[in-house]
Amino acid sequence: MEKKLKVGIIGTGRIGKVHTMSIMNQLPQVEIKAVTDIFLDQAKEWAAQTGIETVYNDYKEMIADPEIDAVLVCSSTDTHADIAIAAANAGKHVFCEKPVDLSIEKVEAVIEAAKKAGVKLQIGFNRRFDHNFRKVKELIENGTIGDLQILKITSRDPSPPPIEYVKVSGGIFMDMTIHDFDMGRFLTGSEAEEIYVAAACMVDPAIGEAGDVDTALITIRFKNGAICVIDNSRKAAYGYDQRVEAFGSKGKVEITNDYPSTAVWSTETGVYSEKPLYFFLERYMDSFAEEMKQFVNALIDNTDTPVTGFDGLQPIKLGLAARKSIAEGRPVKLSEID
Amino acid sequence: MEKKLKVGIIGTGRIGKVHTMSIMNQLPQVEIKAVTDIFLDQAKEWAAQTGIETVYNDYKEMIADPEIDAVLVCSSTDTHADIAIAAANAGKHVFCEKPVDLSIEKVEAVIEAAKKAGVKLQIGFNRRFDHNFRKVKELIENGTIGDLQILKITSRDPSPPPIEYVKVSGGIFMDMTIHDFDMGRFLTGSEAEEIYVAAACMVDPAIGEAGDVDTALITIRFKNGAICVIDNSRKAAYGYDQRVEAFGSKGKVEITNDYPSTAVWSTETGVYSEKPLYFFLERYMDSFAEEMKQFVNALIDNTDTPVTGFDGLQPIKLGLAARKSIAEGRPVKLSEID
Amino acid sequence: MEKKLKVGIIGTGRIGKVHTMSIMNQLPQVEIKAVTDIFLDQAKEWAAQTGIETVYNDYKEMIADPEIDAVLVCSSTDTHADIAIAAANAGKHVFCEKPVDLSIEKVEAVIEAAKKAGVKLQIGFNRRFDHNFRKVKELIENGTIGDLQILKITSRDPSPPPIEYVKVSGGIFMDMTIHDFDMGRFLTGSEAEEIYVAAACMVDPAIGEAGDVDTALITIRFKNGAICVIDNSRKAAYGYDQRVEAFGSKGKVEITNDYPSTAVWSTETGVYSEKPLYFFLERYMDSFAEEMKQFVNALIDNTDTPVTGFDGLQPIKLGLAARKSIAEGRPVKLSEID
Amino acid sequence: MEKKLKVGIIGTGRIGKVHTMSIMNQLPQVEIKAVTDIFLDQAKEWAAQTGIETVYNDYKEMIADPEIDAVLVCSSTDTHADIAIAAANAGKHVFCEKPVDLSIEKVEAVIEAAKKAGVKLQIGFNRRFDHNFRKVKELIENGTIGDLQILKITSRDPSPPPIEYVKVSGGIFMDMTIHDFDMGRFLTGSEAEEIYVAAACMVDPAIGEAGDVDTALITIRFKNGAICVIDNSRKAAYGYDQRVEAFGSKGKVEITNDYPSTAVWSTETGVYSEKPLYFFLERYMDSFAEEMKQFVNALIDNTDTPVTGFDGLQPIKLGLAARKSIAEGRPVKLSEID
Repeated sequence: MEKKLKVGIIGTGRIGKVHTMSIMNQLPQVEIKAVTDIFLDQAKEWAAQTGIETVYNDYKEMIADPEIDAVLVCSSTDTHADIAIAAANAGKHVFCEKPVDLSIEKVEAVIEAAKKAGVKLQIGFNRRFDHNFRKVKELIENGTIGDLQILKITSRDPSPPPIEYVKVSGGIFMDMTIHDFDMGRFLTGSEAEEIYVAAACMVDPAIGEAGDVDTALITIRFKNGAICVIDNSRKAAYGYDQRVEAFGSKGKVEITNDYPSTAVWSTETGVYSEKPLYFFLERYMDSFAEEMKQFVNALIDNTDTPVTGFDGLQPIKLGLAARKSIAEGRPVKLSEID
Repeated sequence: MEKKLKVGIIGTGRIGKVHTMSIMNQLPQVEIKAVTDIFLDQAKEWAAQTGIETVYNDYKEMIADPEIDAVLVCSSTDTHADIAIAAANAGKHVFCEKPVDLSIEKVEAVIEAAKKAGVKLQIGFNRRFDHNFRKVKELIENGTIGDLQILKITSRDPSPPPIEYVKVSGGIFMDMTIHDFDMGRFLTGSEAEEIYVAAACMVDPAIGEAGDVDTALITIRFKNGAICVIDNSRKAAYGYDQRVEAFGSKGKVEITNDYPSTAVWSTETGVYSEKPLYFFLERYMDSFAEEMKQFVNALIDNTDTPVTGFDGLQPIKLGLAARKSIAEGRPVKLSEID
Repeated sequence: MEKKLKVGIIGTGRIGKVHTMSIMNQLPQVEIKAVTDIFLDQAKEWAAQTGIETVYNDYKEMIADPEIDAVLVCSSTDTHADIAIAAANAGKHVFCEKPVDLSIEKVEAVIEAAKKAGVKLQIGFNRRFDHNFRKVKELIENGTIGDLQILKITSRDPSPPPIEYVKVSGGIFMDMTIHDFDMGRFLTGSEAEEIYVAAACMVDPAIGEAGDVDTALITIRFKNGAICVIDNSRKAAYGYDQRVEAFGSKGKVEITNDYPSTAVWSTETGVYSEKPLYFFLERYMDSFAEEMKQFVNALIDNTDTPVTGFDGLQPIKLGLAARKSIAEGRPVKLSEID
Repeated sequence: MEKKLKVGIIGTGRIGKVHTMSIMNQLPQVEIKAVTDIFLDQAKEWAAQTGIETVYNDYKEMIADPEIDAVLVCSSTDTHADIAIAAANAGKHVFCEKPVDLSIEKVEAVIEAAKKAGVKLQIGFNRRFDHNFRKVKELIENGTIGDLQILKITSRDPSPPPIEYVKVSGGIFMDMTIHDFDMGRFLTGSEAEEIYVAAACMVDPAIGEAGDVDTALITIRFKNGAICVIDNSRKAAYGYDQRVEAFGSKGKVEITNDYPSTAVWSTETGVYSEKPLYFFLERYMDSFAEEMKQFVNALIDNTDTPVTGFDGLQPIKLGLAARKSIAEGRPVKLSEID
């Protein structure tokens, strides 16, 4: 094997740990040279557990390391853009978690920095790499269901995040629906033209007090004519609910959830089966590994990354338009957002 | 057995025949005394085939028959209201097919006439009596899924009606979505407050030329807070698609289609199963019989009919609001319609 | 319409009533002229309820009626053969419920009598006319699954019959498995060569005391090479369980049960769906109507009946061989039975 | 972390590689110190690819290494027993692939050697660790389905092994059904009393010429009263088919296959879904990792292994009894085998 690709991981929270394990278990051509975290103790503990050799005091030290080829930006959302820009400027390839930032300007600045530095940039829309969603994409692309006419995305979380998180996350459209916005773009292969949102606070009044909604029905018209509906809830009592139905001129395809087992049991009182896999870590683990693999391949083969900075920008615009639709009680054109 | 209830059937097209057979096969307490149709030959042929004793030259002769207790108005939509009013005035109970009429005024006149005459009026929203939809209603009503938050109705036809029909039917919202509007009211147990429609002509340009759409995504806010989305298409390549998902604070319930058999077969090339039952006659036959049974019971027991004139009126308002939403590209409040 | 076919029904228990309703609702070309029953009051009550004109004191009176074209033998099993023979001798076509009789000799005598008299004979193996089983037959016959290699039949009742019935019914193989024996012959299109039974009394010791088993796993080798396993239980806690899997050189087909609705509901405690339709009346109602229709068609068109006397005889032999297999703890060849 | 457990892998074929990857990716507490293989080049290549430090010329060198704590016997079946015995004698813990050997004597010798040396012995019945089968076990053990009465195991391969393999593998019962025999013991929690086999050569005549069968229906009576049927085929056109149904006094549980995705697509020509995961590597990967994890835990915690030498012995007896049943055309008691 040739020289290994050396990466640094910035942020050792839940998602930083997921990427660490994907690389360690499935990407022998990559070495995780260093980690860092604003909670330095957490970074040190994780490094010790996993045998990562270096813990930098901050991301600036890391990007100053000439051995590091690429960084994974897994820190809190408000720090993504600054770190990504600094890393790009330092000549590091960047894998950046979603959302890149809550403002269009900063996302554009990240894109610009990567472009100028000639480094690769990939955004963490992992669901594109999931076995179920990929199958839908395949059946659309190979013409099985004809021209896509109606796209229905169901995306419900098992329980709402802490109110403190809701207050800084940018709200449901930025931290949750953003994946669904991306999925809409990915599956239609088109850009949104107009969005209309019917939403409410039905799960927890505290979410409403924090200025957000927790239940939403979102209609998006895409430029290629497809009409998309996304339904979101912060709390599905039965667990994480992640489904898609794509309807076209020649047919439809539906994907359902994944389950801990295929068991169905029947007794005097009824017929039972398992609840869906609990949350995104259980449900999407393989997709996180796959996105990392494709990021690494893009670096090694010097090809385009599968999820670009532009792909990171569009869902932000959709999120801003969604908020405007609620505020003004009307459909909002994406052209109003720029 | 006591004296049989005597009914007359006005209109011997597809749905008139369905009701004839339901009564003959499953309602021994009812005698179909007479039929009529503007195509008199068709009425005569049907009477001969089924042994119905009398064929009247028109509905006026029928409602002049003092032996007739009730009439079934199964003629073309534009004649429903006049016939229903005349029948009510003649003291006959009325079962009227949907839509009662395309104008609010005429539907209100029918309701008024029935009220004044003290006769029963039932509207033909048969899906309320279907085994699948009833199970959804039951699970909502018994609290299994908690407070209803999101209601998703999928309603797609196997193929569009003739253009000539589209031109006079009142369009997709009046002849097709009307059932889904009723289902939304039935399942939420609430009234619509606002409607927004994203629609297009994707199936056949001739439908667009006739001033209608063939594909629609409809968002309805109900007064009790539930948000509903209906998706319609005039043409599902795989057949009639009739599903509902109700999501609430404690869970969800989904119903799928009915199929000719439960067979699943697997070969080297894949895993296969049957397409849904072809169209509404195959799919909803039992529900037609059940609605007729409950109409007859309401007459015999002198109780309220399960689908009232008011239930016939509301979907018309929704249809008019849906059209307005398309014309003006905005959500429309139902209060704007009256 | 031409002159109606006139039939008499002998036995107004559960199955006699089912056939009455099938004919009245779906076979306008047939008139049920008369009924009889050893419990004459029951016959009179049924005739009054349904408007059947004549109640004969016994089956002999009925078959002496020159107007009667055919009789349906729906009486208790021990009377089937004598009545069927007498009816055939009187020149009546015969539809006979299963089992024809518990002895080979008497079944052969019925076949002989019908042959000599030149009348039609059909045996009541209704499952051959069921939508699910027919689909399996179709996929075998059209070559979809290739040469049939393994056939698996699951047949479990929701609860055991009364012990008094078990004592006279001929036991599980004659009153319950007999349908599965027929299904094995129907689907393989072949005759049994050898049978081996592993059985026990697991449901109710009283069944064992009555000399019967209530749980059985039956292996049958068919002459065309197919191997079949039937599993029976007198008591499935979750209800009537009627499934088949046919495995062949090119694939497999599976059928599952029918359900009251397609609803699936999900809550915090799990995912739920309906139990199967309760028992044979709910599950097989359409197949009873279809077998009657095909019997009537065979009479009107003067063609062979779809389930012949020979088809009535073979399962009896299998039942006798099954008992012998248990008694002797070894596989038994059908050739040992004749 | 404490001192790592050091293991050596004997045999770097398909299954040896699977265990290597499980340990490397998921068992940080274990170091694979050395590998060997009778095809030494293959062992060297594998070691180079994975960074395993030592390649021994043969297993004797490996078990002479005082640093090695345990060996994984992944060589060809005919070598299992000798290696396992030698390893045990050298004081190494042993994980041995199935079947341990084709003769009862040699399996007993392995058990004896491990016992004498006081080392752990685990047999590679990986399916016990599969998510689906574990769920069935759980629902039996927690009483959900009551007393187990009927157990149905379907086990079909996508295609037969090479004839050369069939000739030395011990035949279908030793190399394929052996897993199902183990599953029967695992799920019933009981020992077999009697076995009856109906089998034939339907897939490939060359298998018959090699003295084996390729299609079998196997009935086993267990000592606790449960009756089990296993159906095997060497070739299911649609792929690997691994299902179980357990039926008891209070209900049943069924598990189906795992699939590449949950997609169901519907077009004008039908409704389609994916074929099962192709073969055992795709289907059971997680179970291989889990069995290795539990082996390692047993070593570290000094507890009993979850699949013992006794568990390795019983299926061999069942395989021998199965052959005898075919040869003599009768049910065979296990007590006849010892």
